Amino acid sequence: MLFSPHDKLIIAGDSVTDASRARPAGEGLFGAHGNGYVQMIAGFFDALYPQLDLRVVNRGNSGDSVRDLAARWQQDVLDDHPDWVAVMIGVNDVWRKYDSPHQKEQHVSVEEYRETMTRLIEETLPKVSGGMILMTPYYLEPNPSDPMRADLDLRGDVVRELAKTYALPLVDVQKDFDKLLEHLYSAVITWDRVHPNYIGCSLICKSFLNTVGFDWNQGLV
Amino acid sequence: MLFSPHDKLIIAGDSVTDASRARPAGEGLFGAHGNGYVQMIAGFFDALYPQLDLRVVNRGNSGDSVRDLAARWQQDVLDDHPDWVAVMIGVNDVWRKYDSPHQKEQHVSVEEYRETMTRLIEETLPKVSGGMILMTPYYLEPNPSDPMRADLDLRGDVVRELAKTYALPLVDVQKDFDKLLEHLYSAVITWDRVHPNYIGCSLICKSFLNTVGFDWNQGLV
Amino acid sequence: MLFSPHDKLIIAGDSVTDASRARPAGEGLFGAHGNGYVQMIAGFFDALYPQLDLRVVNRGNSGDSVRDLAARWQQDVLDDHPDWVAVMIGVNDVWRKYDSPHQKEQHVSVEEYRETMTRLIEETLPKVSGGMILMTPYYLEPNPSDPMRADLDLRGDVVRELAKTYALPLVDVQKDFDKLLEHLYSAVITWDRVHPNYIGCSLICKSFLNTVGFDWNQGLV
Amino acid sequence: MLFSPHDKLIIAGDSVTDASRARPAGEGLFGAHGNGYVQMIAGFFDALYPQLDLRVVNRGNSGDSVRDLAARWQQDVLDDHPDWVAVMIGVNDVWRKYDSPHQKEQHVSVEEYRETMTRLIEETLPKVSGGMILMTPYYLEPNPSDPMRADLDLRGDVVRELAKTYALPLVDVQKDFDKLLEHLYSAVITWDRVHPNYIGCSLICKSFLNTVGFDWNQGLV
Amino acid sequence: MLFSPHDKLIIAGDSVTDASRARPAGEGLFGAHGNGYVQMIAGFFDALYPQLDLRVVNRGNSGDSVRDLAARWQQDVLDDHPDWVAVMIGVNDVWRKYDSPHQKEQHVSVEEYRETMTRLIEETLPKVSGGMILMTPYYLEPNPSDPMRADLDLRGDVVRELAKTYALPLVDVQKDFDKLLEHLYSAVITWDRVHPNYIGCSLICKSFLNTVGFDWNQGLV
Amino acid sequence: MLFSPHDKLIIAGDSVTDASRARPAGEGLFGAHGNGYVQMIAGFFDALYPQLDLRVVNRGNSGDSVRDLAARWQQDVLDDHPDWVAVMIGVNDVWRKYDSPHQKEQHVSVEEYRETMTRLIEETLPKVSGGMILMTPYYLEPNPSDPMRADLDLRGDVVRELAKTYALPLVDVQKDFDKLLEHLYSAVITWDRVHPNYIGCSLICKSFLNTVGFDWNQGLV
Amino acid sequence: MLFSPHDKLIIAGDSVTDASRARPAGEGLFGAHGNGYVQMIAGFFDALYPQLDLRVVNRGNSGDSVRDLAARWQQDVLDDHPDWVAVMIGVNDVWRKYDSPHQKEQHVSVEEYRETMTRLIEETLPKVSGGMILMTPYYLEPNPSDPMRADLDLRGDVVRELAKTYALPLVDVQKDFDKLLEHLYSAVITWDRVHPNYIGCSLICKSFLNTVGFDWNQGLV
Amino acid sequence: MLFSPHDKLIIAGDSVTDASRARPAGEGLFGAHGNGYVQMIAGFFDALYPQLDLRVVNRGNSGDSVRDLAARWQQDVLDDHPDWVAVMIGVNDVWRKYDSPHQKEQHVSVEEYRETMTRLIEETLPKVSGGMILMTPYYLEPNPSDPMRADLDLRGDVVRELAKTYALPLVDVQKDFDKLLEHLYSAVITWDRVHPNYIGCSLICKSFLNTVGFDWNQGLV
Repeated sequence: MLFSPHDKLIIAGDSVTDASRARPAGEGLFGAHGNGYVQMIAGFFDALYPQLDLRVVNRGNSGDSVRDLAARWQQDVLDDHPDWVAVMIGVNDVWRKYDSPHQKEQHVSVEEYRETMTRLIEETLPKVSGGMILMTPYYLEPNPSDPMRADLDLRGDVVRELAKTYALPLVDVQKDFDKLLEHLYSAVITWDRVHPNYIGCSLICKSFLNTVGFDWNQGLV
Repeated sequence: MLFSPHDKLIIAGDSVTDASRARPAGEGLFGAHGNGYVQMIAGFFDALYPQLDLRVVNRGNSGDSVRDLAARWQQDVLDDHPDWVAVMIGVNDVWRKYDSPHQKEQHVSVEEYRETMTRLIEETLPKVSGGMILMTPYYLEPNPSDPMRADLDLRGDVVRELAKTYALPLVDVQKDFDKLLEHLYSAVITWDRVHPNYIGCSLICKSFLNTVGFDWNQGLV
Repeated sequence: MLFSPHDKLIIAGDSVTDASRARPAGEGLFGAHGNGYVQMIAGFFDALYPQLDLRVVNRGNSGDSVRDLAARWQQDVLDDHPDWVAVMIGVNDVWRKYDSPHQKEQHVSVEEYRETMTRLIEETLPKVSGGMILMTPYYLEPNPSDPMRADLDLRGDVVRELAKTYALPLVDVQKDFDKLLEHLYSAVITWDRVHPNYIGCSLICKSFLNTVGFDWNQGLV
Repeated sequence: MLFSPHDKLIIAGDSVTDASRARPAGEGLFGAHGNGYVQMIAGFFDALYPQLDLRVVNRGNSGDSVRDLAARWQQDVLDDHPDWVAVMIGVNDVWRKYDSPHQKEQHVSVEEYRETMTRLIEETLPKVSGGMILMTPYYLEPNPSDPMRADLDLRGDVVRELAKTYALPLVDVQKDFDKLLEHLYSAVITWDRVHPNYIGCSLICKSFLNTVGFDWNQGLV
Repeated sequence: MLFSPHDKLIIAGDSVTDASRARPAGEGLFGAHGNGYVQMIAGFFDALYPQLDLRVVNRGNSGDSVRDLAARWQQDVLDDHPDWVAVMIGVNDVWRKYDSPHQKEQHVSVEEYRETMTRLIEETLPKVSGGMILMTPYYLEPNPSDPMRADLDLRGDVVRELAKTYALPLVDVQKDFDKLLEHLYSAVITWDRVHPNYIGCSLICKSFLNTVGFDWNQGLV
Repeated sequence: MLFSPHDKLIIAGDSVTDASRARPAGEGLFGAHGNGYVQMIAGFFDALYPQLDLRVVNRGNSGDSVRDLAARWQQDVLDDHPDWVAVMIGVNDVWRKYDSPHQKEQHVSVEEYRETMTRLIEETLPKVSGGMILMTPYYLEPNPSDPMRADLDLRGDVVRELAKTYALPLVDVQKDFDKLLEHLYSAVITWDRVHPNYIGCSLICKSFLNTVGFDWNQGLV
Repeated sequence: MLFSPHDKLIIAGDSVTDASRARPAGEGLFGAHGNGYVQMIAGFFDALYPQLDLRVVNRGNSGDSVRDLAARWQQDVLDDHPDWVAVMIGVNDVWRKYDSPHQKEQHVSVEEYRETMTRLIEETLPKVSGGMILMTPYYLEPNPSDPMRADLDLRGDVVRELAKTYALPLVDVQKDFDKLLEHLYSAVITWDRVHPNYIGCSLICKSFLNTVGFDWNQGLV
Repeated sequence: MLFSPHDKLIIAGDSVTDASRARPAGEGLFGAHGNGYVQMIAGFFDALYPQLDLRVVNRGNSGDSVRDLAARWQQDVLDDHPDWVAVMIGVNDVWRKYDSPHQKEQHVSVEEYRETMTRLIEETLPKVSGGMILMTPYYLEPNPSDPMRADLDLRGDVVRELAKTYALPLVDVQKDFDKLLEHLYSAVITWDRVHPNYIGCSLICKSFLNTVGFDWNQGLV
């Protein structure tokens, strides 16, 4: 298991992470973790490994590109003193190019993505006792030559490279979804190929827990 | 794994099962499974065992005692032709005695509970290709001499007996929650010691999946 | 121009046609035509050819498959005594197979689609002074080997065949959208590859008006 | 066609233009263009001439007179760096005189209208790569001796003069509506002789597209 | 004064009369008379002639033509045993022709208007101890050659004739509004030339009270 | 008639005057005058004396005592440059003493009432071209020895004195209501003996118009 | 103490009793007793005499006169098998005469009141193991010559007579309120002299408990 | 009786006290005292001892721990110049430890509780003419070895000590509730063992009134 007792884990990202979480921080009573994969991760830790006392904080923000995330990184992530930071970002960098082609100021290039992600990692690693966990952004379209999928895959590749470069745990969400898309059509999992329903959240949760060494057979029940 | 490909599993119960499911049947798009443990079970089956094509239908109804459930059993359960029926019922049989002591017509005795459960099982088993799964009703209070807990335990014992008598798979939700309550105070999991939040739902989901032979390590990811 | 003065044109279909129209009939004041392509068609007829006095009635119904449409055909279409009937149906026949795979009773086969469409045409043609107009159902995915696209194309082919067999005007909406998808990614036009925004509605409107002989240069302005 | 590839066109005006557009700028996803004629113009450009990549921005503001528009011109129009600016303004300058006769500070004279329009044109022309398009304000009352119509016609005449003086494209919306009012009573198009429904929006859209050289027969479909 | 102590006066009509009155009958507490001219009439009778104990009942119904009014006359008017019945109806007979030209089944001819009004009067007069009061329907457009005004004037003429034929008191609302329209533009009084605001209601109230012999100088204050 | 053409009349007061008027000033379209007696006064002037062009502005504020009114007098009344100012204030000065006996800081003495009213009059008279109109505050209880009525009567007497001292027109609303209360029980007119319904508003309107020389028989109709 | 262990007490009446209780019966969880004096009575019994197990059921109905109450007596009261029935009714019998003078069919005479109350008592007494408790209707106006107070006092006298005749416990609510009105003005207790706030409810509760022998000094705390 | 005529009593606390009171101060019309025990206390004083003119002000604030209360003490309590201050605080100090175990910055130790309470008392006593009343925080769980009950009891003990040390009146709410819990299960009184319903509020009210010398037999009725 990656985490030590009493660790604080911040998960940062876009609307997939946000999932209507509470503000300013997504933790605590009354559904504050949002209704997405973050809540599921927090739920299984508390249900099966309560003695770990893992504190999970949701810092997703709907609509964020990597540029938007970088702008709030100090306040939302570093100032909250996490032990671990997980991050899944990038779909909005690409999506705006494909759903809002005229508004070019909203399109974020893969170069800016790489530079920004690198900078966030370098700024963060020295400040966390645990480390960082990288998650690939994903698009629920199995056709590799779909233009938006292909474009997003460039960001996924950046994430995979950075995980290798900095030796960080990698949750390859896209790869895991690709296995599921061999069996289910995307419409079972999502309305718009981005926002997952409970099936998609279950998969992201499982994919994350696989990476961090969560053992389903050693938990409380 | 208990289930065969293409099986239909109906889960019947009270508000813990209901969790704001759609009507008339809790299945399909737009959160129809409700936002509780049933949705999580359905989610993990579709996410990790999509080729099983398991059809999960939520037939919980808020406020139901075993008497109420029996009254709608034919229409809600048998007429929908399930292969498997899971049932968790009984907390309202007891709760009304402890929160509405003057309204005695709403209190259901353990004798009535046993007779009704036995009748439902005997009526149902001949009509299902798979079988039935019994789940103990639970109360999130670890003190065994708490009057409501003690009273509910009588129903839990009936469920355990019936599982033995009819050789049915048993999900002992109370026993699993009791392990968790050694680590977490009930208020982390529930507001009223009955309705579970995401942590409690995670535990019920895990407890159910343990019983039906769900293998976390053999799934798709 | 296909229509004669004072003709009544009923347009029947699913949610793409419905677009929140009024009930029981989608015509008249206060946005009764809905906010989709039907309103645009009605608007351009009244704005540019007011002397034609064409009466357009929206009879779309959200969620309808061809089976659902057939069930309300007598009451919604024939009993309203149209001169012309346009129909675009079929995406829900296929969509449920791809977004609700467990609920097989909601999947409509291409055979049922062909038989039902044929029956509706044969019942209707003798009763209308003008005729029928067939519109292909469409899916806003340009990849022909996408499973849902391929499956829907089978229905599009049925519509094309029937138009030929009965010598009916054909609005090939799919074909026209395919041209647009060479230039714009589907997300510009629609959230879910089915429901069109104002860009998609403009295209369906134009596609329909092309077929019925609407002349943009001979209108009032 | 007046526009070059990738041009940005701002349409400024009052509530007829606004039509519940998004703030601060009326462009992008989720119906941001409003539900009026601007959305239709943007829709037909993207549907039929997608390769033009024309960016349409709605800057109408409900209730604005020319005085109000001038007060926000720098921020709303010039600072957004348009290539083209279309403007239809003036009905509120007159309307307040006829519906709020006691509140004289809200009435804008034709002299102020002419001076303000002239100033806006002179300020704007040097700053736009494309140019400006003038649209006449209109009143959906065909009787030329109706006092409000007569008064508004004075503003229409100013717009026609300015178009001639500065050699700008003119969309004579009033003139086009007058043709329609020979066939339809105003109540078919509008509740209050000012705000158009879908029929009226169709006509304004067509009138605008006629002026800018939109060719209905050379588009994608 | 036309009314005797304790008389019950029913005022029947369309939305101008209705004005959001209570159902089934528009009388009593909590604004049951609606917020239009009927409330003002009732208010001045109770405020200035309380000893008269005049009971005013609003039986207007939004959207009603004379055909709709006739269909509910027995239940809404005769069965409530009035001493006096006032009626103002007819604008919807005409309005639908001008705002919904395609829906011809909603247009009521002047012949049907005359026959229906005659029948209602003949049925009612023998059953009321007081009598009937006729009010002309009106259109707030001073131009006599406006098509809708001219068409409505035909109904006004029918009302004037019937008042003469049956020697009934006549409230010539149109004539009184025509005087006001010499001074104020219609937009001061109404949004759509039909529904009056407080200024228009004041005038209808005054016009009605003039006819029934209300003396402003002999009242309580 | 007290008023000259084009005069602006501000009516200041408490909730009886306010009646849900618009902010900041109660005048203009969309029911801005509120739904009380001010709207009725404005309505009869525009309906019967439209050529007078009287501008009526509602500056009532719910809950105000004379102390509260004085605090906003400069901004709400003087800065709006009225020709005439009518004022009815005082019931809240007294009411709080009778409904909130413990909160003594909200009770305003008759001495403070007299001083404040005097000051407002002296400040205002030099600044208005027309003058001021005083209205007595009232309580809809006919029993003179009712404590709240007796207490409020002290304020009514102050108003009567001030009208005499400064030779100002007086609307003795209390006196006029007293006549009505000889015939109707207060519950017909008001729920709480303060806020009037349409009957009470009719009486206040009539009482006001009597004072300002409104001639019901010389108006337009 | 009047009540025996496990007794069921039904309290019937009008809106003062109703106080937004649940339907069909006002008892049980979630504020079902309403937010008025009935809830307070039930609260003090359960808080101070829990061992009594008194079941209190609210059967008040807003707007009811004695005529309305009689019409639902069988279903609402007798069919629910009470041991004790308390009833406070009559203010609406009188109030409608004073707030709705024209609607005479809603006024209930004192003769009808006496006959109906007598009949209800005679029908009920043989069917209840405990008995009946009569409560005087009240009006929060201390002036005995106020017409509505005087008229209601006639009903209060009927209740006092009937209590004597049938030897029933009497809660003289009016008499107790009269004592309070010597100290507090009615506006402290009620907005309309009928519906009590928390102060008035406290007094009714106390008045009721005085009559039934509730001992504040012998309770649990 | 502890209070003198015209005293102002402030009751400070958490959500049990707050009960949706008005802001900034919980006193006056329209339910400003909230719907909990404070309103009941205020109600019985005004209903039975109106001549005392006791002013009760609710200064509870939902969610407050003793740390939060201390932060607003100057503004909410001292600046309002009370004669008496009652305070019940502490459950949130403990509850967060049991429902939000990960968020340790929200847990308040018993040492901090004692110090803060001591400081508030020492600051306040010199400034109040009457004095302070201490109320024990409570938990509606009768099992003394329940961890949260045991933890809260430490705060209750602090309150009891401080009452002794400073010779202050003590309302031992926990002790009184413990008596009730011998007869009723906690679910009759509360959903979450903290927030009381009307039964629990009745008990807190009675417990408070017992301490302050309220005599139920010497009041007005």
